[in-house]
Amino acid sequence: MRRVAIVGAGQSKYGEFPEKGIKELFFEAYKDMASSVDKNFDPKQIESAYVGNLGSGGFQLGNMSALVAEYVGLPYIHTVRVENACASGGYALVAAVMDVMSGAHKMVLAGGVEKMTDVSGMKQKYWLGVSGDTEYERLAGTTFAGLYALIAHRHMHEFGTKREHLSMVAVKNHKNGAQNPKAQFQREIQLEQAMKAPIVAYPLNLFDCCSTTDGASSLLVCDAEVAKQFTDTPIYITGFGTSSDYLAIHDRINTVTLEGTKRASQHAYKMAGLTAKDIQLAEVHDCFTIAELLAYEDLGFCEKGKAGQFIEEGHTKIDGDKPVNASGGLKSKGHPIGSTGTGQAYEMFNQLRGTVQKPIRQVKGIEKGLVHNVGGSGGTVSVSIMER
Amino acid sequence: MRRVAIVGAGQSKYGEFPEKGIKELFFEAYKDMASSVDKNFDPKQIESAYVGNLGSGGFQLGNMSALVAEYVGLPYIHTVRVENACASGGYALVAAVMDVMSGAHKMVLAGGVEKMTDVSGMKQKYWLGVSGDTEYERLAGTTFAGLYALIAHRHMHEFGTKREHLSMVAVKNHKNGAQNPKAQFQREIQLEQAMKAPIVAYPLNLFDCCSTTDGASSLLVCDAEVAKQFTDTPIYITGFGTSSDYLAIHDRINTVTLEGTKRASQHAYKMAGLTAKDIQLAEVHDCFTIAELLAYEDLGFCEKGKAGQFIEEGHTKIDGDKPVNASGGLKSKGHPIGSTGTGQAYEMFNQLRGTVQKPIRQVKGIEKGLVHNVGGSGGTVSVSIMER
Repeated sequence: MRRVAIVGAGQSKYGEFPEKGIKELFFEAYKDMASSVDKNFDPKQIESAYVGNLGSGGFQLGNMSALVAEYVGLPYIHTVRVENACASGGYALVAAVMDVMSGAHKMVLAGGVEKMTDVSGMKQKYWLGVSGDTEYERLAGTTFAGLYALIAHRHMHEFGTKREHLSMVAVKNHKNGAQNPKAQFQREIQLEQAMKAPIVAYPLNLFDCCSTTDGASSLLVCDAEVAKQFTDTPIYITGFGTSSDYLAIHDRINTVTLEGTKRASQHAYKMAGLTAKDIQLAEVHDCFTIAELLAYEDLGFCEKGKAGQFIEEGHTKIDGDKPVNASGGLKSKGHPIGSTGTGQAYEMFNQLRGTVQKPIRQVKGIEKGLVHNVGGSGGTVSVSIMER
Repeated sequence: MRRVAIVGAGQSKYGEFPEKGIKELFFEAYKDMASSVDKNFDPKQIESAYVGNLGSGGFQLGNMSALVAEYVGLPYIHTVRVENACASGGYALVAAVMDVMSGAHKMVLAGGVEKMTDVSGMKQKYWLGVSGDTEYERLAGTTFAGLYALIAHRHMHEFGTKREHLSMVAVKNHKNGAQNPKAQFQREIQLEQAMKAPIVAYPLNLFDCCSTTDGASSLLVCDAEVAKQFTDTPIYITGFGTSSDYLAIHDRINTVTLEGTKRASQHAYKMAGLTAKDIQLAEVHDCFTIAELLAYEDLGFCEKGKAGQFIEEGHTKIDGDKPVNASGGLKSKGHPIGSTGTGQAYEMFNQLRGTVQKPIRQVKGIEKGLVHNVGGSGGTVSVSIMER
């Protein structure tokens, strides 16, 4: 089986950009990726591109993988738009890895892009709601905040998780995001402030919810055998796993476990020959603060039900023994849906190479990281393990 | 490199089904696929599913690959929605082939589904228009019939192609489709009738345009080494190719060539060790009659500019020396966007195995076929070569 490496990674600034559409955002990330390749970058070598995207600027573009490829100067290649809701980017990366492993193409772009703000003709609630079970959840009036609120409430009931624990996730991630020049919200928040924010869907309040974001990210993926032609420090994808789940949370085995995360991570660990203990940094899918707590448990960082204690004890702080979301996570960095998964890999690429822009956010001397991307409320999950 | 085979194929009836949504259509095709596997079919062995889809029932469903997988009884697998406009199905098949080649999964479902009729909240014109260049074509007022009309007009101007030649495509495909129990329009039409139909976008009239269709299709793809466990007559994918192109036709090298078709087919021929001469049956993308004429030329069945003569001489009739669209094509069988590519492979699977329902449509004794799927007006193209 071919080994696969990432030799370049780029990300646009995440935020609200009335002046930029899908094409401009994708180009910004592509340019950033191109400039990150240490040597011999030649766009003509790119034979294939996977683009994660949910709403294509308000469902206004089909065939958009070819459109953005054309826009960055890559006509006549294999292009695919991957749509797995909020996990579109993570699955685009897995698709690129499989493509290289198959021998079909040698040099593959994996990216993602989403234009969520200033989009006409579509309501945000509708746009996001489509990623759950439309018939049994969205049309019954549930929003994603509502679904994750049900999960959070049940987690509190079963395990004694406290409201404070949710807010601790937000505080930690904003502290990291404040050091990320590409984050949407580069400011710290205080625990009291996070606790007192207006309720969105009880028990989740404003600071428990990620934002709507414009942004893009881009990775250059190739056969490990040729990786050293482009950089002395390629980052290897040593394992990956994915799993779907029942979309509606009422259909699941239990409400407080993302079965997809468990299965995807177990598969990835096995493939990489690692366990959860070996992971030195994780970028996890904290679309809501409860989602990060679930990730601690379902990725095996702590026992089921113990995530509240785990955040409280500080393990997942940037200087803890299991740092999580050094980038600021979806909460502070932003969540431009299709870009989120490849954006996590962009952060991990720089963390493993020691090239994070602001040293205060750099987790030092790490060799093994994990990225975790969730679609909907867990209907699709991808996990990839990246090693220096 | 692993060899890949198809061991089962199914298709729903194509047509207008007010009582069926995406899930029901996909299930119908899945059941049909399951019943086509000669022996040892076990859904538990399916580890991965690629689902081609453009509009997910009026852009109402995200994460829909996991949703339809769950609905047919396949939770906890790798699922991906592939969206490449009208070529979504063809690219879903290519993705499944790459997946098996990569060694990631052994048994993979490739399918597609589209619900186009009776969909609330979206206008058909808008829905389809998104697959071209939105900024320079759709928002300027062009429809797909308009774009293909420009191509047809130019083809007539440059090569002397006649209006009759367009209608001959429609007549041929309706003749074949009349013998296809799963086709949307199972009736023959006469040349005079086809010539006199109301104009849609000059020179294209009603009988030059495919319809809007509900439908789904499903293929079971696996490593060729295990294929004989499921059937004595697997069909092998011996070559595939894809290419994007500039989405807007005004940006292209020339207006009367689909560069994507040329490049995709040349790649597929090379991979299979074949040339256009070796192909004994082709299912090509005749969304408009001019598109089938372009396919004759760009796939290398005849010289550029000679497609009118080629259809007139009868080569592509079911009993000709180069039969095309034995199924009835998009024109008569219907064009449920995401399903079209895997639906073409369903027809080819049965043609190569000699298991077409009505013997009058069966092309006898063939061993090598080609399927050709186009996204938009040529922005994405996939070609796969299937051999007995």
